Amino acid sequence: MTNFLKTEISSLSLRFIHKKLFYLDQTLIPEQEKWCEAFDLKEVIEAIKLLKIRGAPAIAFASGLFVAQEIYKNPNISYDEIVSLALSLTKARPTAVNIFNLFRELVFNVSISDFSTTVFLESLFFKIREDQKSSEKMAKMAMTLLPKTTQLEIMTYCNTGALATMGKGTALGVIYFLHQAKRLGRVWVPETRPLFQGGRLTAWECLKMGANPVLFSDNMISTVFSRHKIEAVLVGADRIASNGDVANKIGTLSLAIMAKHYKIPFYVVATSETLDPSSTSGENFCIEERSEEEIKGANFFGKNLQWAPSEVSCFNPAFDVTPASLISGIIFENRIWFPQR
Amino acid sequence: MTNFLKTEISSLSLRFIHKKLFYLDQTLIPEQEKWCEAFDLKEVIEAIKLLKIRGAPAIAFASGLFVAQEIYKNPNISYDEIVSLALSLTKARPTAVNIFNLFRELVFNVSISDFSTTVFLESLFFKIREDQKSSEKMAKMAMTLLPKTTQLEIMTYCNTGALATMGKGTALGVIYFLHQAKRLGRVWVPETRPLFQGGRLTAWECLKMGANPVLFSDNMISTVFSRHKIEAVLVGADRIASNGDVANKIGTLSLAIMAKHYKIPFYVVATSETLDPSSTSGENFCIEERSEEEIKGANFFGKNLQWAPSEVSCFNPAFDVTPASLISGIIFENRIWFPQR
Repeated sequence: MTNFLKTEISSLSLRFIHKKLFYLDQTLIPEQEKWCEAFDLKEVIEAIKLLKIRGAPAIAFASGLFVAQEIYKNPNISYDEIVSLALSLTKARPTAVNIFNLFRELVFNVSISDFSTTVFLESLFFKIREDQKSSEKMAKMAMTLLPKTTQLEIMTYCNTGALATMGKGTALGVIYFLHQAKRLGRVWVPETRPLFQGGRLTAWECLKMGANPVLFSDNMISTVFSRHKIEAVLVGADRIASNGDVANKIGTLSLAIMAKHYKIPFYVVATSETLDPSSTSGENFCIEERSEEEIKGANFFGKNLQWAPSEVSCFNPAFDVTPASLISGIIFENRIWFPQR
Repeated sequence: MTNFLKTEISSLSLRFIHKKLFYLDQTLIPEQEKWCEAFDLKEVIEAIKLLKIRGAPAIAFASGLFVAQEIYKNPNISYDEIVSLALSLTKARPTAVNIFNLFRELVFNVSISDFSTTVFLESLFFKIREDQKSSEKMAKMAMTLLPKTTQLEIMTYCNTGALATMGKGTALGVIYFLHQAKRLGRVWVPETRPLFQGGRLTAWECLKMGANPVLFSDNMISTVFSRHKIEAVLVGADRIASNGDVANKIGTLSLAIMAKHYKIPFYVVATSETLDPSSTSGENFCIEERSEEEIKGANFFGKNLQWAPSEVSCFNPAFDVTPASLISGIIFENRIWFPQR
């Protein structure tokens, strides 16, 4: 059944080679580039929970590719077994919608009689190729909104680059193509507490692409806005409601409020797969809360440093919801949506 | 000359005993409560630069007490030697104004012929006793502004408590007296990157006073505001211009912007010693920039954990300036100032 499928996949963080899934352990970046084999379901779920695999599109496609691996391992796998795998994977982290959308289309909404592993694989690889191509499409859309100048100073947030998607990324993908077009000044990178996706991953990706990142802590955003002429803020999305509310990494809402205060355009960059048409607003989005330990200290590369008292209570939502009223536009691969116009 | 002076001083972070200055090393809190002797000028300056001694009032009084120690050690110390000590101490960190105000009044503005070490010591100890008493005065002023209810949910920032002053603190002092008056609900504590004065010091002080702190990272402030009814934000100040602009720990400006967005009263609590009448606005305040290493990782208790790539450029201002337009009121020990009314 694989004769007609190009099944070799290689992104910055995921590889599907000889019908086996490998992932780059993102918790080790920038210290080490270590590839791990996705042996079994438990390991993949753990990798997603611990953010070894992260980014809404990458979580979806890693999960899809894990199911593909299981199909290749056992061509007689039943529909029920695939449903069960898909359900388990979607439960690893609750906020990002891409994985729900992927499995809804490829599995849950397909009746048992219509389901075939061949169609699943064909559709999955097709969607991966679409995601790879989407980065450049989103970048072209974004460029129609950005000033037609060089040396654009852009602020981004968290990591939305090649690590998080199958292509060059969403928001950071736009930055990649601006850099390619020699239109990029500095990239302003908030560190993105508590897991430092900005400080670890975006800083690393920017250096890797030859761009000029400036890293700072999240509480310095307003000072950057007040001292430097930032042309636009570009962020990704984990779930977009039908009214334009956007769930994204914790801190996005604060960034949007400050961008509005300083009258700086605030754009969300995402593929259509991030839309959640079943949600009429962001009010009822399920927001993952994570361990208090992430707030009390940092734990990377086998080292743990706790600075807060062990007895203190912590609040650690992993995402927040930015209302459409704070968003200048949502840039998809095929259109730009101005939810407030 | 000391017969009439009560020279024993004991605050949570400074002790002056047998005419010697000791300081609690605040970089070791909450891991360890270690008292160090302030042997010489170099050590005191280093302690201030490294934030072992910190908080605008505590920096001023530690510096004053160090000069007192040198006077007791050498009663024949010259005016010029005292001026030289004072100048060196004021240069350790440039933004907080209290130390400038203290030495201006006690040394720089006193002519050599009028200067006497006895008057210096008397004035210094008088000012320390005034600072000790000021916490309760500021708290009483603040309580006239806060809702007359119990279970007040208050957000603060950085550390402005007994560690930072000679008494119970400025903003955190208000929280202490609210707790004493059984009017305090939770204390919402942003961690205050990069040096985690919230996560390390305010969390520790709140637990020590029996209050109920909730710690979170700075990028979660808007989520706290959107989900919880916070009655007021109380912050300290390092320098206040004559138009009401306030320099304070980096992140205060962002907090003020978000408080305005959510229509939450934003109060600055400080003693009059934090006024800088020579500055007509905050525009020309000298803002200290600190090492890039503080952004790339964390270094506490002898452990270093770096998560960002070594090659990345960082931006690390230690303070920001909140314009008077974002401030609901400035609470001093003797009055409340509404710069925008």
